[in-house]
Amino acid sequence: MKAVKMKIHQADSLLRITEYLSRPSFDKSDVTGIVKKIFDQVKSRGDIAVRELTLQFDKVEINDFQVSPQEIAEAEKLLDSSLKTAILQAKENIYTFHKAQMPNGISIETMPGVNCWTKWVAIDEIGIYIPGGTAPLFSTVLMLAVPAMIGACNRVALFTPPGQDGSVHPAILYAADICGVQEVYKIGGAQAIAAMTFGTEKVRRVNKIFGPGNSFVTEAKMQAIQQGVAIDLPAGPSEVMIIADNTADPVAVAADLLAQLEHGADSQAILLTNDSKFASAVNEEFQHLSLLLSRRNIIEKSIENSFSIVAKNDLIIEIANEYAPEHLIIQTNQNDYFMEHIRHAGSVFIGPWTPESAGDYASGTNHTLPTYGFARAWSGVNIFSYLKQITYQEISRAGLEALGPVIETMAKAEMLDAHAMSVSVRLNSMK
Amino acid sequence: MKAVKMKIHQADSLLRITEYLSRPSFDKSDVTGIVKKIFDQVKSRGDIAVRELTLQFDKVEINDFQVSPQEIAEAEKLLDSSLKTAILQAKENIYTFHKAQMPNGISIETMPGVNCWTKWVAIDEIGIYIPGGTAPLFSTVLMLAVPAMIGACNRVALFTPPGQDGSVHPAILYAADICGVQEVYKIGGAQAIAAMTFGTEKVRRVNKIFGPGNSFVTEAKMQAIQQGVAIDLPAGPSEVMIIADNTADPVAVAADLLAQLEHGADSQAILLTNDSKFASAVNEEFQHLSLLLSRRNIIEKSIENSFSIVAKNDLIIEIANEYAPEHLIIQTNQNDYFMEHIRHAGSVFIGPWTPESAGDYASGTNHTLPTYGFARAWSGVNIFSYLKQITYQEISRAGLEALGPVIETMAKAEMLDAHAMSVSVRLNSMK
Repeated sequence: MKAVKMKIHQADSLLRITEYLSRPSFDKSDVTGIVKKIFDQVKSRGDIAVRELTLQFDKVEINDFQVSPQEIAEAEKLLDSSLKTAILQAKENIYTFHKAQMPNGISIETMPGVNCWTKWVAIDEIGIYIPGGTAPLFSTVLMLAVPAMIGACNRVALFTPPGQDGSVHPAILYAADICGVQEVYKIGGAQAIAAMTFGTEKVRRVNKIFGPGNSFVTEAKMQAIQQGVAIDLPAGPSEVMIIADNTADPVAVAADLLAQLEHGADSQAILLTNDSKFASAVNEEFQHLSLLLSRRNIIEKSIENSFSIVAKNDLIIEIANEYAPEHLIIQTNQNDYFMEHIRHAGSVFIGPWTPESAGDYASGTNHTLPTYGFARAWSGVNIFSYLKQITYQEISRAGLEALGPVIETMAKAEMLDAHAMSVSVRLNSMK
Repeated sequence: MKAVKMKIHQADSLLRITEYLSRPSFDKSDVTGIVKKIFDQVKSRGDIAVRELTLQFDKVEINDFQVSPQEIAEAEKLLDSSLKTAILQAKENIYTFHKAQMPNGISIETMPGVNCWTKWVAIDEIGIYIPGGTAPLFSTVLMLAVPAMIGACNRVALFTPPGQDGSVHPAILYAADICGVQEVYKIGGAQAIAAMTFGTEKVRRVNKIFGPGNSFVTEAKMQAIQQGVAIDLPAGPSEVMIIADNTADPVAVAADLLAQLEHGADSQAILLTNDSKFASAVNEEFQHLSLLLSRRNIIEKSIENSFSIVAKNDLIIEIANEYAPEHLIIQTNQNDYFMEHIRHAGSVFIGPWTPESAGDYASGTNHTLPTYGFARAWSGVNIFSYLKQITYQEISRAGLEALGPVIETMAKAEMLDAHAMSVSVRLNSMK
């Protein structure tokens, strides 16, 4: 059995540590071509292509992609009541947190008689992708469907690959049902994203696509953008950065690192600490705890991407901002100091009783977050992801009398005569 | 001289009108390859490639791309004081409207002891592209730089192609200067977007790219996304939809249509009215006014994409929502009725004294708006375009005691042992 241990680097300047912080790059040229072909097929042959691709990739023949009301009703019966209770509690917390974010438009008179305002309007049609595989990601259903419910999107359609028996895991159906998802389709992979993008005979296209997935799904979402469909955010492998000092519990820190590493072989976990003894203590617990885990084979791979950095506190902040982590855990005796200086992160977990898994599942924050440095420019999924802002203006006669000459001067300087004319005909009509 | 007249369609159902509402599609396969080559060149050879491409496309040899403080100081002297006054007034209104949008984070206890909150943080490094050509688009400088100033982005860099004499129009430099833009580069086209994306020896890369451009710039922004750089929104040809009845002034409506059509040969203007006599009256004014315009040659082309639809009010609403216009002008005796039912639009202009050009220049709303149906899922540029949301949580010991079992149950059901473990080691340590 391999030793599960993190390399420990000593750092005294950002420059010397930057090479460690660059994310692995992926050659996606193969994926691009395959996805393009799938898009072409679904665009030109619709449901028939989806059916063929489902047979090819999911090894199952599906005639009716849409999950029936009976299947949904059955699902509830198949689940343990403790799991249902947990899902309902998580849903409530996610609802509470996202509901509190619901924005109001603003209204302001920018000059006398010039009234401008904004309104937030739900995006009509939302598509949610939930990956298949061994684990049913019902938590992601909650994360992506609850805000759609709060935003009052007209239509929420969920896509997930069928198992080889043609079924969808009951926890996914249950979560979709309690979140008001109206349509669930047994379609997975790039063909699901293509169906959402172009529509088929049976599937209406959507305006915006949410959800995680493998490299094919990720690439498909990027190709969907090129077709004018919006997406939640670009995806990359999951990652955590932990800032901890010797006041933290090394057992808890080691478990937090492992929780990240079990996601996949490409996951990354980085510990930043000002105490090299603490880094070693975490490594020891790490060894010990990893023996208890069923996904140890994944952890043995992802540990290769992972390391500790021992540095002074001010350098730790520089490193964290340089990396812009998806998840940032802070367990120190100076949490406020670190929080104040962090400028880029997806979601931040503070103090000894706040494991990342709280936010992954149930505290209320969203777990769909910017990875791979995208936290520099992107937010995680939030209520605004389901809304768009429309701006309005109404100008009074007196308002246009005052503002009109400004518009005319600027329009003429930009050589847009008709723009100036649309003001001048109005000013003339006032005379 | 060609007749400048809009076709008038009669409509009694959405189905029959849908074909008119589909936007022209563009074959961009040529552009994609050219832009890809430019990206490769700038990525591998940096400033040297930028210099070569500038010579090739802008016909000028530029050694130092960055505009000097002297050039900026000179610019102010070269401008008419009436234009400076107009620009300052517009800037003030844009500032007022966008400042009013500045959000506060929220904070909520989702369960006792489970505290979750959000913080809005400025995106660090912003790049703004301003197209060249005959008209200096200083208004776009205001629209894109003022919110960056309000959001307090650390760095705002502006890119615009040099004229053949190697200069940048003084109105652009003046607008950039009063908006606190720190860096202005004489780089245009796809090479500017590539420099923003990869960085060169002289130009630092940015986190997010804003601004309009021709098909090369638009494609370059889509390729920038693939490299992990954020963009403001996807672009398409500009368009207006006008809902007007016989209480509107046909002269004003005709001028508003013309203001749209002078943008470019691919612009589109659509009039929706419940009165066919009104449609004809607008057409007459249209003829007359177009004779007065310097960009009549452009209008003669864009008029081909443009038409009127005569329909009942409820169908007019359906048509407008189907089209999802960038600009929507409403000039009727039932403005509230229309406003209430419109679900997709970039920006809405209401009443007889509110020409679109008010929002294009000076009322305060942003003129960078979703075209081409993107208003279904995208907002125009607004203060949120310059910010990202970070979520935070801190759970108390009692909070984790209550929430912990929920997390453990869900994590185990998703077969993520280490996620459950990160809770259980903490719960154990409490004993």
